[in-house]
Amino acid sequence: MPRLAIGIEYDGTRFCGWQRQDRGASIQTAVEEAFSRVADEPVKIGAAGRTDAGVHATGQVAHFDTRARRDSRSWLLGANSNLAPDVSVSWVQDVPAEFNARYSAVARTYHYLILNRPVRSALNRDRAWWIHGDLDLAAMQAAAPLVLGEHDFSAFRGAQCQARTPIRDLQRLELRRSGRFIVVECRANAFLHHMVRNIVGSLVHIGRGEAPPEWLGSVLQGRDRRAAGITAVASGLYLTRGHYPAEFGIPVPEQFRPDDL
Amino acid sequence: MPRLAIGIEYDGTRFCGWQRQDRGASIQTAVEEAFSRVADEPVKIGAAGRTDAGVHATGQVAHFDTRARRDSRSWLLGANSNLAPDVSVSWVQDVPAEFNARYSAVARTYHYLILNRPVRSALNRDRAWWIHGDLDLAAMQAAAPLVLGEHDFSAFRGAQCQARTPIRDLQRLELRRSGRFIVVECRANAFLHHMVRNIVGSLVHIGRGEAPPEWLGSVLQGRDRRAAGITAVASGLYLTRGHYPAEFGIPVPEQFRPDDL
Repeated sequence: MPRLAIGIEYDGTRFCGWQRQDRGASIQTAVEEAFSRVADEPVKIGAAGRTDAGVHATGQVAHFDTRARRDSRSWLLGANSNLAPDVSVSWVQDVPAEFNARYSAVARTYHYLILNRPVRSALNRDRAWWIHGDLDLAAMQAAAPLVLGEHDFSAFRGAQCQARTPIRDLQRLELRRSGRFIVVECRANAFLHHMVRNIVGSLVHIGRGEAPPEWLGSVLQGRDRRAAGITAVASGLYLTRGHYPAEFGIPVPEQFRPDDL
Repeated sequence: MPRLAIGIEYDGTRFCGWQRQDRGASIQTAVEEAFSRVADEPVKIGAAGRTDAGVHATGQVAHFDTRARRDSRSWLLGANSNLAPDVSVSWVQDVPAEFNARYSAVARTYHYLILNRPVRSALNRDRAWWIHGDLDLAAMQAAAPLVLGEHDFSAFRGAQCQARTPIRDLQRLELRRSGRFIVVECRANAFLHHMVRNIVGSLVHIGRGEAPPEWLGSVLQGRDRRAAGITAVASGLYLTRGHYPAEFGIPVPEQFRPDDL
């Protein structure tokens, strides 16, 4: 049965998250229903990242199998016309049967937006974490390299995490200013539950001057979640890319820019 | 009675527009109710621009009179805690009694966002006008200067416009690319109803190759609304600044950037 890969963008605000659940609307359900209509048969969809309630995506990658034959353009237009305005499909393409959006991914990239200004923002209310006091970006940037590499990330692991092991390879953690945003870019082979948001919460703790940059390394070493900072709010987080071996030909999204939101 | 000026940001999506109306929630009503609570007496608010349904603002300016005495910070925090998340107050300050947000304004600036990409965007669904075909930005840029200056703008005037005269002084009309957006910046002493959106609709007509740049000048000269392009959708429009004589000390907003949304 032919397999298709798709790229998905969504505003996570009204959803219980990617994954189908007993309560609340899931993005998975919305996308499955849209493609099932186009396929004229039920489809089941697997994704690169199971984002939480309120978390957004510009570069979610998923796949499904179907007996239906449509060209890429028909899948794309058909799915988008069957989806609510807060979910959109960016591309659709054929992939070999051995491609799996979750298991073939060699890494994921998330971006996190912190809106650092004195007053809250109506337009960014569900799109960024508002921090009203000035953050020391240089201190946050000094801390970031201390958690790069393969480590036991238990200190940044959510209580409900179901991963078998807390070992992850954090390949990139960069912070830059973009207008009034501080943008955090974070890439790892895979992430523990709440891992990005707990790292960002700890970086903000440093940015507020409540701990020196070195503290981030000692939190990692201690492997104790209670020692880390608070969990950053969901609405600042964006799944921006799934990384795959080149042989699958998965489209590389443009560099994420807050401009594109 | 002391007079206060305020800066306001809003997501216009769920509102019937700035101005109080019989039907639908207005931003004016929301802001009046919030400041009335802080003042502990009813206040009436006048604004620089009466934005339409679905139109946003990052730099709306308004004023009101009150007998209540609070410091600026108390007004700001009090109003923001009494406003829904999609409206926020950026600043509050004392102004002389002769300041009037509408009549003291010497100019207004609006920005318009066009999202130019093949597929629609979930995250930008209410924040920009999605145009799926490639637009010729250079042609649009070549057309813009043809409508600069003081003219009869009847060709770009909405049918419900109540202005006494169609003469306006268009002081700035610039287009640039920012990521996947085309950003249109438009400044005039004042605007006719739908004037920015009708100019943008005509620029897009040129960008699509349906008319040469010179066409924009001939539309202006003809003073016939039926000759111009369609009205660009409301959700791409942002009121970003009211311009006032320096003596009033009204804060100058940072340059509008899509990054800040």
